[in-house]
Amino acid sequence: MGLPVSPLAPARFPDLPPVDGLRLAGFAAGLKPAGQADLMVAELAPGTTIAGVFTRSKTAGAPVLWCGRALAQGRGQARAIVVNSGNSNAFTGIKGDRTVAATVARAAQLFGCSEDQVFVASTGVIGVPMAPEAIADRLADARDRLAAPDPAVWASAADAIRTTDTFPKGASAGCEIAGVPVTIAGIAKGSGMIAPDMATMLGFVFTDAALPAPVLQALLAKSNQRSFNSITVDGDTSTSDTVLLAATGAAANPPVTDPNHRSLVGFRRALDQVTGTLARQIVRDGEGATKLIELAVTGATSPQAARRIGLAIANSPLVKTAVAGGDANWGRIVMAVGKSGEAADRDRLSIAIGGHPITRGGQVIDGYDEAPVAAHMKGQEISIAVDLGLGRGRWTVWTCDLTHGYISINADYRS
Amino acid sequence: MGLPVSPLAPARFPDLPPVDGLRLAGFAAGLKPAGQADLMVAELAPGTTIAGVFTRSKTAGAPVLWCGRALAQGRGQARAIVVNSGNSNAFTGIKGDRTVAATVARAAQLFGCSEDQVFVASTGVIGVPMAPEAIADRLADARDRLAAPDPAVWASAADAIRTTDTFPKGASAGCEIAGVPVTIAGIAKGSGMIAPDMATMLGFVFTDAALPAPVLQALLAKSNQRSFNSITVDGDTSTSDTVLLAATGAAANPPVTDPNHRSLVGFRRALDQVTGTLARQIVRDGEGATKLIELAVTGATSPQAARRIGLAIANSPLVKTAVAGGDANWGRIVMAVGKSGEAADRDRLSIAIGGHPITRGGQVIDGYDEAPVAAHMKGQEISIAVDLGLGRGRWTVWTCDLTHGYISINADYRS
Repeated sequence: MGLPVSPLAPARFPDLPPVDGLRLAGFAAGLKPAGQADLMVAELAPGTTIAGVFTRSKTAGAPVLWCGRALAQGRGQARAIVVNSGNSNAFTGIKGDRTVAATVARAAQLFGCSEDQVFVASTGVIGVPMAPEAIADRLADARDRLAAPDPAVWASAADAIRTTDTFPKGASAGCEIAGVPVTIAGIAKGSGMIAPDMATMLGFVFTDAALPAPVLQALLAKSNQRSFNSITVDGDTSTSDTVLLAATGAAANPPVTDPNHRSLVGFRRALDQVTGTLARQIVRDGEGATKLIELAVTGATSPQAARRIGLAIANSPLVKTAVAGGDANWGRIVMAVGKSGEAADRDRLSIAIGGHPITRGGQVIDGYDEAPVAAHMKGQEISIAVDLGLGRGRWTVWTCDLTHGYISINADYRS
Repeated sequence: MGLPVSPLAPARFPDLPPVDGLRLAGFAAGLKPAGQADLMVAELAPGTTIAGVFTRSKTAGAPVLWCGRALAQGRGQARAIVVNSGNSNAFTGIKGDRTVAATVARAAQLFGCSEDQVFVASTGVIGVPMAPEAIADRLADARDRLAAPDPAVWASAADAIRTTDTFPKGASAGCEIAGVPVTIAGIAKGSGMIAPDMATMLGFVFTDAALPAPVLQALLAKSNQRSFNSITVDGDTSTSDTVLLAATGAAANPPVTDPNHRSLVGFRRALDQVTGTLARQIVRDGEGATKLIELAVTGATSPQAARRIGLAIANSPLVKTAVAGGDANWGRIVMAVGKSGEAADRDRLSIAIGGHPITRGGQVIDGYDEAPVAAHMKGQEISIAVDLGLGRGRWTVWTCDLTHGYISINADYRS
């Protein structure tokens, strides 16, 4: 919305492949006052399974509450996904529930399915009730625009879910399941917040694989942990965060009932590639971001401990401002490890930046030369490695730096 | 260090009263390269009891580790407190332990006490080992300078423990224990961080009350929760945070063995006043702060839940930048309540700013007029009230806004 494109944005939106069984539309439905694209609808072939992961916010918006219920009641079957930007329909009380109900009812009627096969997500300003039929009344138009997604259709869908994003986000990967070629492609949005809107992390991933809903849910939950749940821009959790993974089954691969089956090795890797790429694109669009930071934590007592330590570092304003200033301030990393609450031993902690060791055994290494580290800190992609020296737990987390741009976006623009 | 004094600073350092049984010195001992005051020593009369609370960082510095051990071994008796600024002696490994050992040994010799009656704290740059005798060698000089604290002595002591603080911090209060007048006076330091230093929250409170160490510890622990543990500048936890409370016994009040005894009602209130005032002075000196924010959380399921919700709001960069921008962005408060992880019900949440109700029952109140709220947001002291509508738990938390000043201090100044 008038913000310059992030310096960390990819050169261009990728050419995403079609996914058999999926039809898509993204267009301007009049929900955003300035007339930008604001409605995305995905129609899914009969038999499509779906999995979802959602914000754990205690003040989650009405669309999130609906999706949780639909997943449980509908046994993971899906025929439509309706996503709007411009209004998050969060903290809108009973009115918000009514808007969701009207949207879902109309979609079920238009797509000839049950209501619990319709999934919704909303992002944009919070606390402003929408007319109950605001989205529902645009669904017939949306249905008429549906098309098998070529690169342009994908791009318009990715566009329609943006709020403060400075670039659209997409990723795809191919793989095989038991020798049958399968496609995974997805779009996402997320950047941070802008007054008075509450931006949100949304992700929609589609595949033509044939996978039962429980398998899909297990695969998504795991992939989500290592991707969307391993990024942070400002540590603030939206009320609307949603990731959906839909599998149309059009690829007709042999049936799989175990998410850990070895025929899914390639699929898991491809899914991780798509979710990981989308997640890192969100960090690259973090408000005011000028540097992408990769934090690899190893040697923790468990993967969960490694993740919490990584997030404690990634959410530390002092670490993030140090990176913004190109300052290899490892003392702040020590501090952040200490505040994570996880087991750490001062005398076993090793830190490296850009592959250059800095501390070992609780002290700066003898003859530490800051020059190559300082050179690395000047780049756009900063890699920080922290080894706890305690166990085998490892996790990687991504964040961006904290700059004057973040303050300008969030404090200087009056709502 | 060259930073302008915070706009939220009190008009001047208060005239603190003497505390019988306490002698103090604060002076430049050569630990800071630029020659500012950097060593504070307190000599305590025989029989003085002491209590302490410390950072829960897993990478705590050597002085913190020593104090914990001394408290346990020495049964809460104290004869000396030695505090330096300019070097935090944290993440200095075995060398840090040696510096503490040498300091404590020399102080015990000079003051004729056992080592576990000597308490130490350090603040300043981290990861830079000090010469083992750097502090010890200045203690004889310090002893010669000790004086019963008049206002000027207090001021020099408060000065000697500063790092990036833009003003010295002090507070006092009087009370009675069973009809005997008692004095409480204390100093503190803390502001945030500055590259490459890790600033720290230190507080030293003295009283002439006669109180056994276990009673003192219970009183301090409780008062600390509602004061120093209820403030946040940037959510980052120092490796050195320390608060000590020493009671010389010179007031000779009747013995008390129960921290909840009714003869201590006045003392508890006076102690809360001193610790609360010092804590809020630290927030007033928060890096880049232009507004003091008081967050009163009520209606939570427990006091602990209220505190965690208050801290989630206080640590939200989005809430803090909104306040910086004078933006009554209550949606961000809703978001922060949701991410706290504590029980919250969207439909029972009420928010007021500056005493003006904004939301009730999960929605903006009918006819909400932003004008008086916007006027309040222009002031230097912002009051935000959040009622969960669930129970009787209440807690108050203080923080400051997040401004370009914070980014400048932490990112623009290269170490």
